Amino acid sequence: MTNTNPARGMRDFLPTDVRRRDYVIGVIKEVYEKYGYEPLETPSIENLATLTNKYGDEGNQLMYKILKRGEKLLQELAEGTVKDEDHLSDLALRYDLTVPLARVVANYRNDLPRFFKRYQIQPVWRADRPAKGRYREFYQCDVDAIGSNSLTYEAEQLAAGSEILKRLGFDDFRICINHRKVLSGVLEVSGVDNADHSSALVAIDKLDKIGIEGVIEELENRDIPVGKIKSLLEFAGKDLSAEETIKKLEGMLAVSEVGGNGIEDLCEILRLSTANGVELKIDPTLARGLSYYTGAIFEVRVPDLAGSLAGGGRYDDLIGMFGKEDIPACGFSIGLERILVVMEERGMFPEDIPTSPADVMVTVWDAETLDESLILASEMRKAGLKVVLYPQADKLGKQFKYADQIGVAKVCILGESELAEGTVSVKDMVSGEQKTVDRGEVASQLRIDG
Amino acid sequence: MTNTNPARGMRDFLPTDVRRRDYVIGVIKEVYEKYGYEPLETPSIENLATLTNKYGDEGNQLMYKILKRGEKLLQELAEGTVKDEDHLSDLALRYDLTVPLARVVANYRNDLPRFFKRYQIQPVWRADRPAKGRYREFYQCDVDAIGSNSLTYEAEQLAAGSEILKRLGFDDFRICINHRKVLSGVLEVSGVDNADHSSALVAIDKLDKIGIEGVIEELENRDIPVGKIKSLLEFAGKDLSAEETIKKLEGMLAVSEVGGNGIEDLCEILRLSTANGVELKIDPTLARGLSYYTGAIFEVRVPDLAGSLAGGGRYDDLIGMFGKEDIPACGFSIGLERILVVMEERGMFPEDIPTSPADVMVTVWDAETLDESLILASEMRKAGLKVVLYPQADKLGKQFKYADQIGVAKVCILGESELAEGTVSVKDMVSGEQKTVDRGEVASQLRIDG
Repeated sequence: MTNTNPARGMRDFLPTDVRRRDYVIGVIKEVYEKYGYEPLETPSIENLATLTNKYGDEGNQLMYKILKRGEKLLQELAEGTVKDEDHLSDLALRYDLTVPLARVVANYRNDLPRFFKRYQIQPVWRADRPAKGRYREFYQCDVDAIGSNSLTYEAEQLAAGSEILKRLGFDDFRICINHRKVLSGVLEVSGVDNADHSSALVAIDKLDKIGIEGVIEELENRDIPVGKIKSLLEFAGKDLSAEETIKKLEGMLAVSEVGGNGIEDLCEILRLSTANGVELKIDPTLARGLSYYTGAIFEVRVPDLAGSLAGGGRYDDLIGMFGKEDIPACGFSIGLERILVVMEERGMFPEDIPTSPADVMVTVWDAETLDESLILASEMRKAGLKVVLYPQADKLGKQFKYADQIGVAKVCILGESELAEGTVSVKDMVSGEQKTVDRGEVASQLRIDG
Repeated sequence: MTNTNPARGMRDFLPTDVRRRDYVIGVIKEVYEKYGYEPLETPSIENLATLTNKYGDEGNQLMYKILKRGEKLLQELAEGTVKDEDHLSDLALRYDLTVPLARVVANYRNDLPRFFKRYQIQPVWRADRPAKGRYREFYQCDVDAIGSNSLTYEAEQLAAGSEILKRLGFDDFRICINHRKVLSGVLEVSGVDNADHSSALVAIDKLDKIGIEGVIEELENRDIPVGKIKSLLEFAGKDLSAEETIKKLEGMLAVSEVGGNGIEDLCEILRLSTANGVELKIDPTLARGLSYYTGAIFEVRVPDLAGSLAGGGRYDDLIGMFGKEDIPACGFSIGLERILVVMEERGMFPEDIPTSPADVMVTVWDAETLDESLILASEMRKAGLKVVLYPQADKLGKQFKYADQIGVAKVCILGESELAEGTVSVKDMVSGEQKTVDRGEVASQLRIDG
């Protein structure tokens, strides 16, 4: 017998799952479009050369590569001349949505506006070890604004992200913001060599897991001077206002030009976010794993989730990777799979997401009157109702059982007497009540009740 | 320089493409849901064992297989012990939506209703030679009704398909129907051995391309008796009514039980389709390539397209492939990519598909008043408008140029005097007219004009 489970780390989405996912994706799209972001879709399969060495060692290992086809490969295999993977693959599955965006920006330069604001909601694939909430095929929901270093993009992405979460019913999220230049400033005044900056950030990024002492130990193990990094780490857990945090940072970074620039950006993003009615918390210990950020970085957190619901930041050196010049960019990514997990756990899905395929089911009396049942179903569809027609003549009990199985709220019975009298009997599947309605009025009445 | 084109046979969808695709997909979904079909999604990657030998030789060749990962493979390669593809891959990309459906039906037996009606709109991948309108990643839009041999499923799928095409603006399509048992009957009365039936059907399926004489020659080359097949082929091009066709077939197949059963089914589908207000044309030469059909088969054609816009039929022996018993099923598949090509060529996309990312753009006067522009944008979004904020202080001319580039219809100018007077200047980008409006009224006025 063939195994009928989905492949390891992959998921089937049955109707209820799809409806919930579509609901969340619908809210995300609608809000992004209100902010003037446009939809983009790129192919699942990219040339391997496009993706190789863009995601570090981990990426090279976790990327799904596609086997070459054809006689030549088979012959080489038979002859034993294939010595490594490079002979075996020249295509791979999309690993994220950022590198494909960079390729698109380089390829359609003349078709895209000067500032290109796009959202993209598509699956990506990573051969990671599956775990709770971690899958090998999962959706990313990215917005990116490309072509300007204006901080309005940071502010509007935070406003849009905040609006999406509120619309989905989240009321306890916190938007944390920091700036790579603030971190650079702290490392600078601590006497950390430029060459050790990313190593130091990796250590700081572990604060949540290993605590202040752990980070300091790790820095010392790497021969990195701790200096002011200790004061930075001590921001953790303190519930300072944005103004107090800025003031302290200004004190720490008075002699660092780069640090001062970071603080200036943060102040402007705070000002613009206030105009947008969005509250931010400055968290000077926020580092974010990815190395490509160059400016503001942000994360959205809720109390009952380790990790973040969403995150992003400015990355001015990446989008130009396929062209000749740097292109400034700011992006924000919503963790769709995590949002779905939290909404499920908290019971946050709205009741108006349908749980049944239809509003009404129409029964079938016998083979001769099948066409009459079809016509009734068709009339009710024309009136805007979703209608399931029971497919065959069967005992009424069986038909009701099926109606129960699909969770439909009303059943229209078209039996001998109803046909003779031009009526329909409508059974409410919840109350069990049944009433007889004139054929001509049944659709409009069901719409009102529904 | 890296090649920045999408991989061979793959496509990027820029915003205009995505909007058009989403529009068509939206219509398809809405209509299928009215008929009580539920959404299903399956993973892009399946275990290779699930897909192997399900699609004939062609499928085995055109399937995208995924390279195994890990040290073991590298070592085997280095040692030259990998002699064939089987060592290299245990996963593959989805090749169609039918085999995954069969897997889902076997796997979630107890979670699915007795009759399971699902639609599925997802990409599939085939390493076919790219050609006009033929891509290596393309969408399939399938509906299937599983668990009953009732002909209401044939009738409702034809009604839904017809409604979708009408809603999309097609008014010249023709729904052709035939029945595998009618074809079997013709082969039977012609004295064709059972073993030669599929070979004969392959020849008949070429009628459009090689004509009556060509098919007869091909049958003779294969030593298949022509017999009544000639009369069958002569239906081609004759514009008979359904009644006339049925009458002729009854004459031809008077002695064939299987043929008679096929004719009976066709008559019932005609009766139910009449009840649905759907016109069918019986085309006794319609064979459809796929071998798995067991009952009615159908195709939807338009004059300006070789091949069909949609097609399907009954296949009662396939869905049970992963279980112990046969499960009856009827399915219909809409050729999304072809529909998009024809709609593009004929200019059928409705004007209300947006061509711009926004209804309005808000200009920026200077760095100090950036937050004022943000607030105006935010007010207009709250009123339901899609708003792009120009990201930075710039010459007004540059800002208008960008507005032109993104095709936005109105621009709101918030300059020194407007800010002082509590007004907004609104420029119509088509007429070039400009008028000054009270700040409090600008959103509602734009919505009315828009």
